[in-house]
Parts: sequence; C-alpha cells; structure tokens
Amino acid sequence: MQSKEHIVIIGGGFGGLHAAMALRNTNIRVTLIDKRNFHLFQPLLYQVATGGLSPADIATPLRTVFKRYRNIRVVLGTVRKVDLEQKLVYLERQKFSYDKLILAAGASTHYFGKDQWAEVASGLKTIEDATTIRSRVLSAFEMAELEKEPNIKAALLTFTVIGGGPAGVEMAGAIAEIARITMRCDFRNINPSLARIILIEGNERILSAYPEKLSVKAQKTLSKLGVEVLTGAYVTGIRQGTLTLKSANGSRSIASQTLIWAAGVKAASVSAILAKHYNLITDHSGRIIVNPDCTIPDFPNVYVIGDMAHFQTKGKDMLPGVAPVAMQQGRYVANHILKKKTGPFKYTDKGNLAVIGRKSAVAFRGNIKLSGAIAWILWIFVHLLFLVGAENRILVAIQWGFNYVTFGQSARLIVNNRNAC
Amino acid sequence: MQSKEHIVIIGGGFGGLHAAMALRNTNIRVTLIDKRNFHLFQPLLYQVATGGLSPADIATPLRTVFKRYRNIRVVLGTVRKVDLEQKLVYLERQKFSYDKLILAAGASTHYFGKDQWAEVASGLKTIEDATTIRSRVLSAFEMAELEKEPNIKAALLTFTVIGGGPAGVEMAGAIAEIARITMRCDFRNINPSLARIILIEGNERILSAYPEKLSVKAQKTLSKLGVEVLTGAYVTGIRQGTLTLKSANGSRSIASQTLIWAAGVKAASVSAILAKHYNLITDHSGRIIVNPDCTIPDFPNVYVIGDMAHFQTKGKDMLPGVAPVAMQQGRYVANHILKKKTGPFKYTDKGNLAVIGRKSAVAFRGNIKLSGAIAWILWIFVHLLFLVGAENRILVAIQWGFNYVTFGQSARLIVNNRNAC
Repeated sequence: MQSKEHIVIIGGGFGGLHAAMALRNTNIRVTLIDKRNFHLFQPLLYQVATGGLSPADIATPLRTVFKRYRNIRVVLGTVRKVDLEQKLVYLERQKFSYDKLILAAGASTHYFGKDQWAEVASGLKTIEDATTIRSRVLSAFEMAELEKEPNIKAALLTFTVIGGGPAGVEMAGAIAEIARITMRCDFRNINPSLARIILIEGNERILSAYPEKLSVKAQKTLSKLGVEVLTGAYVTGIRQGTLTLKSANGSRSIASQTLIWAAGVKAASVSAILAKHYNLITDHSGRIIVNPDCTIPDFPNVYVIGDMAHFQTKGKDMLPGVAPVAMQQGRYVANHILKKKTGPFKYTDKGNLAVIGRKSAVAFRGNIKLSGAIAWILWIFVHLLFLVGAENRILVAIQWGFNYVTFGQSARLIVNNRNAC
Repeated sequence: MQSKEHIVIIGGGFGGLHAAMALRNTNIRVTLIDKRNFHLFQPLLYQVATGGLSPADIATPLRTVFKRYRNIRVVLGTVRKVDLEQKLVYLERQKFSYDKLILAAGASTHYFGKDQWAEVASGLKTIEDATTIRSRVLSAFEMAELEKEPNIKAALLTFTVIGGGPAGVEMAGAIAEIARITMRCDFRNINPSLARIILIEGNERILSAYPEKLSVKAQKTLSKLGVEVLTGAYVTGIRQGTLTLKSANGSRSIASQTLIWAAGVKAASVSAILAKHYNLITDHSGRIIVNPDCTIPDFPNVYVIGDMAHFQTKGKDMLPGVAPVAMQQGRYVANHILKKKTGPFKYTDKGNLAVIGRKSAVAFRGNIKLSGAIAWILWIFVHLLFLVGAENRILVAIQWGFNYVTFGQSARLIVNNRNAC
C-alpha cells in the first residue's frame, strides 16, 4: 500500500534526478516537474556547441529514466508560483499539493543586469543555446569565405568567449580546435587556422577556483592552441559585432562577430519569486541561503539544492555550482526524507576537472594536481561514467573515438533555432 | 594545370553530391552551391521525426565530403536568380559565372495551392521539419497526460498522416511504434497505446506505385500496428486540431491535434523562375521536362536532374522522385561533361523498398517481391550502405541495435524550432 506522503521535485537536472532516483521503489509518491522532457548533461554542452556531439547524445528523456518506477510521475510544465504555506505548486493550468518540496530548478545565464547582451552574446545552459552557438560559429566561417572586405572578414573570424571559468576555458579550447584542426582544409578563400579566439577573464588568472599552478598550465595550453587570454579585463559594452573592455591599461574595443557568454549564472527565476514572498535571504546570484540540512528557514519541509542553493559551512567557502554538489545534495535530501540521514549535509569533494583540448586537461583533488594527457583521460572516463544511459555512453565514446582519429567534428550542422540570428 | 572549364552545381542532395563526386580530382573547376551546409539523407528523416535518430546522424557537412578535393569549392548560399544567356548564377551578394550548370535543387513540400496548411500540417523535407514533427508528436502525448477534458484528450491522442506513399507509410508506422511500444509505460494518466494513428490516401490503395500484392501486405501490417488506413479519401480542409475529408461515402471531419503532410512535393522554386523566364515546359509538380541527356531545350550546357527534372522515355512512365534516380543522373551528367558518356541517360532500377515497422518492410525489383523480415533486413543494409560517412553508418547501426533490443527511441527531445508551435 502506498503511503499518503507526496514529494514534489521541481527540476530534472543533476539534483532533482538523483533525489528522485533515491526515492524510487519506496512507498512515497514522487512528482518530478520539469519544463523540458529530458535530463541534460550540461558538462558536455560545449561539445554540442562546437559540433562534436549531437543534442540527444547528452540528453535522456526523463520518462525513459523513470518508466519502470511506478511511484514516480513525470510532469512536463513550467512552475508559475509556489505557495509554501498552502503547500501548492502551480503550473500554467494545473496545481499540485505536496507534503515535502525539493527545489532543484538550477540556474540560467547571468548578464549582471545587462540582459540586452543576451541577444548578441549567447550563454551556454540549454540545448538551444548550444545549437545557436554552433550555427553562429559555423556561419561566421561561411560568411568569411564569401566576404571581400578585409575588416569585416577579420571580425567574422574573431571569436570571443567571455568568462575564464571551466566553461569558458573548454569553449575557447574547442573553438580553437575546430578552427585550427577540424576545418583547416575546409575552405578555399580563407584559412580558418588564422581565426582569432579570445578568452576574457575579469580575475587576474583563468580558472580562479583552481590551484594557481593549474591556471598557469591551462593558460599555456590555450596559448599553444592560439587562444589569446586577456585576464584582469572586464566587458563594459556589447553590440552586434563589437565588444568593449576595460582593464588596468584602459579601455579598448574588439571587432568580433561571435560572442559567447560564460561569465556567470544566476539561480532559476522561481528562486527570486520565493525569496521575495517569504523573506528568504539570497546571495548576489539569487541563490537561496539554506540550512545545514538543505531546508530553508521556517519551512522544514522545503529543500533547496544544487545551483539554486547557497550552502555554506561555517568558516568555509560556499559549495561551488557543479554537478557533484547537486547530485550529492539530491541523494542527501531523499535520504533525509526517508529518515535514513539526520545530520547536516556533508559534501565529499571528489575533485575538479576541466578539459582544454585534445589530450589536455587539468584536474585536482585536495593537494593532488594533474594536467596534460593523464588528466584528459581521467576527464573522458569520468564523463562517460556519469552520462545517463548505456546508449548515450556508447554513442559518445564512438564519436570521441572518431573525433580523435579523424580530427573531425561531424555534427557541424547549421540549423534554424528560434534564437538563432 | 587546371583547365578553364567551370561547372556550377546547385544543390548538394543526392544528385548534386554524386555529380560533384564524379568530377573530383579532374581538371574541371567545380562550385557546389547549397543553402544548407550539409548533405541530408532524406530517406531516414522520418526516424528523426520519431526520435529514433539525431539530425547529425543522417547529415554530413558538405565541406567534410569535399575537403580533400581541391578542384571542388563549396559555397553556402541561396540562389536568387540564374541567367542562362549570360551564364551567371546570383546569390544574395555574390554571382558566379559558369560554363556548364547542373541544377539539382531538389523538391519541397507541395500543398497543391493550399499553402496555409503548411503551418498546421508539417511536411517532412528538412531537418527542421523533422524536429518540428518530433516536438509536436511528443508534446501531444505530454499535453494529453495533463488534460482532463475527454474530447480534447482524444484529439491530442489522434495523429494523422496525409499521403500513403512510402514516406507516409513509414511515418504512420513509426508513430504507431513509439505509441504502442516505446512509450507504452511512460505515462501515468494516459495509455499511449490507445492513441489513434490515421493514414489518409487519395488513391484506392496505399503505395500505389508498388505491386498491388505489396500494397495489401503493407496495409495489413499497418492495421496490425493499429493504424487506421483510409483510402480513396481526399483532404478538403485543415485547421488547427481538425481536418475534413471527402470520399465516396461523403464528407467527414476528424479531430486530430497532430497532422503530418506526406501527400506531395514540388520542384524547388528556382525551377518555376527559370521555366517562366525561358519558356521551359514543366509538369504539374513544377519539374522541368528534360532532354534524354538531362539537358534542357536550347541550353545544351544546362543539366537538370533529380527531383527538379521530369525525365521520361517514350512510352514509359516518368522516372520517380527517388534517391537512386538522382544519384544515377548526377553520375551520368558528370560523365557527360567529362565526355565519358554520349548517349541518353538510362536508369537502372535496382528496386524499391519501404519500411513499415519493426521487422516489416516491402520491396520489389521487377517481378521479384519481398515482404516481412527479409525485406526489413534488406532495407537496413541498403540504408546503411548509402549513408554518407563511416561514422554515421556506425552511429545509426548502434542506435538501431539499441532501438531494436530496448524497444526505445532515445532521441525523443522536445526542442524549440522557429517553426515549432
């Protein structure tokens, strides 16, 4: 017999997926709400953006994941309102009452108040972001091939990635590789390997959350790939085809047709709505500050996890917005609900990895630091391991094999997105 | 040394691709113009539309195909005008002069004067068509899961394919399979296997170009899959959510949320523009009537091939709009240009194949007729053989293996297209 307890989970990302999986085959009713019909493996999104993988390779239909677990129901819908007092979640046309709520709606691209930049400088959080970037990058080369005016041609062949965290580093490295290696012989009027790829970082070094030694390694590898790394530089303006920068040396502008924004994320919009209604404290990125057990003040039946949560243990840094934190929090809150766990959430840091290019990555875990081919092989295995579904693992492994051997990226399709220009 | 002869090919489909390939490594300069940056294997498009394959699995970047052949240049652009007297092809901003021209721009969906139907009843000619249909089919199930009103729910679970040729038969069979098999356990409020799938054909039998025995086989197999086949029925009206039909029994209307148009194609728009300017004769689908050597009257340096051409040998039927005709014509005109061939084009009919569902297809070649599992295995091998690129062949084979064993279709993503509703 099923108990009456009903858990609503908002979001089928790493946090929500792992919470629901930990509640499968229990006597608890679970409703998992997501606005998309698939779980997306965001760490590999940059490879979709550069034509190395197809969207479906890194996405798994949520219904496929849960089809055999009859206590779990998947609902496709966008949350419009959450009433924490009445314990109700409202979608466009439906509402769901809950006993316990897990908020795991993730994050979206943060333009720090300059939302008008979104049109020109795409973020990289969704499948559509990735295919938009893919179309823009490939179209820029195509337009350059036909362009006669040298200044316009140069702007078309300049690609700028804003933000030198892991996502920006991976993106810049991947664009450099398709320009310098994959498409080297593809054109007749332009030499793609002369393309400029610029990576802009506000801090004094890229990968600022990594040990300094690895930042230096990463910067050297990027330079070898021909990426110009500008540190200590802030973007002050973005228009179609140009961006302006400010650094200690003053201001400058760069003519660059393709701009990619990897400079920050903010918690999903439901976070701000809730915070305003219920006087919750949020940080500068809209994350809700949570209790040691991932609940929120005054509402012990409401959990906030993953990129929506600001989780801090006294005297320590806030937990970073990475997949392992969300996964562990998801499993923790499920076990907290099942009363298998009672103490506070403890994060086990299994290490950090960022890939830069072919046979090159950086990794660290505590005091252990790795770089080069070893880190790259580690990166491959970790990512294949955490991909959802055997089919996706095999498909990705085969495409990586082909990409490695042929230097190709076969998913280089220019397609029409609603967001594509 | 390169000769001065310059061949322009418009279109990188089966005809244009095979013409260009036959001209590779010769002393002829070739410019291949296409509005898309990839060759698309259209015969498998219906599998993208039902989530069995990803777009990139059946698409190959044209630049990848030709990168090593320096006498071939690929240009991404849309042809605006062709001046046969001045021998000039105009794109948006460029023009190209040619000595010989190969027109191979293919076909688009034909609504027989009812272009307003396009918005509601998507055709299946492009990647975007396929992802639009995929999103609509999957969204209909998702909306039905949340719908309470029985009439609306029934319309959401009714899928209508208009046109009982090979494309319509394959599409109807594939929708029946995802409803009855793949998604059988995916929902909690609806039973997808109760979905209605309707196939409408104006002729007295489906697959009317096939031997009657195979039409009967195909109809029986579709019925077993639960597809309602309505023959001798014409669509007289289409609105969002409804279509009206006329048959010998009178008129009727069907409430159906998802409509797919597989009832006809017409030659690419460049065909009509040329025909008007140069008094060329076209058939009712806008195909240009060509000479026995695939040239057009008065212009022996202009070839028209594939779905743009109406090719007829005296006393015989017009050649059908299928890939093998286009491929053979492409190779023929290339050899005609190279003066390796001088006589008229002769089509070698290697047979026809249409798949209906799991372990079921129909095939014929002359008097040899096949159906069932044997035809299905033949279909698999032929399609893998003609896919472009080893990587795509392996990826498709693996996904078919998984789909067969797991009864799944893992690319079931709902994404935003410009055309999606």
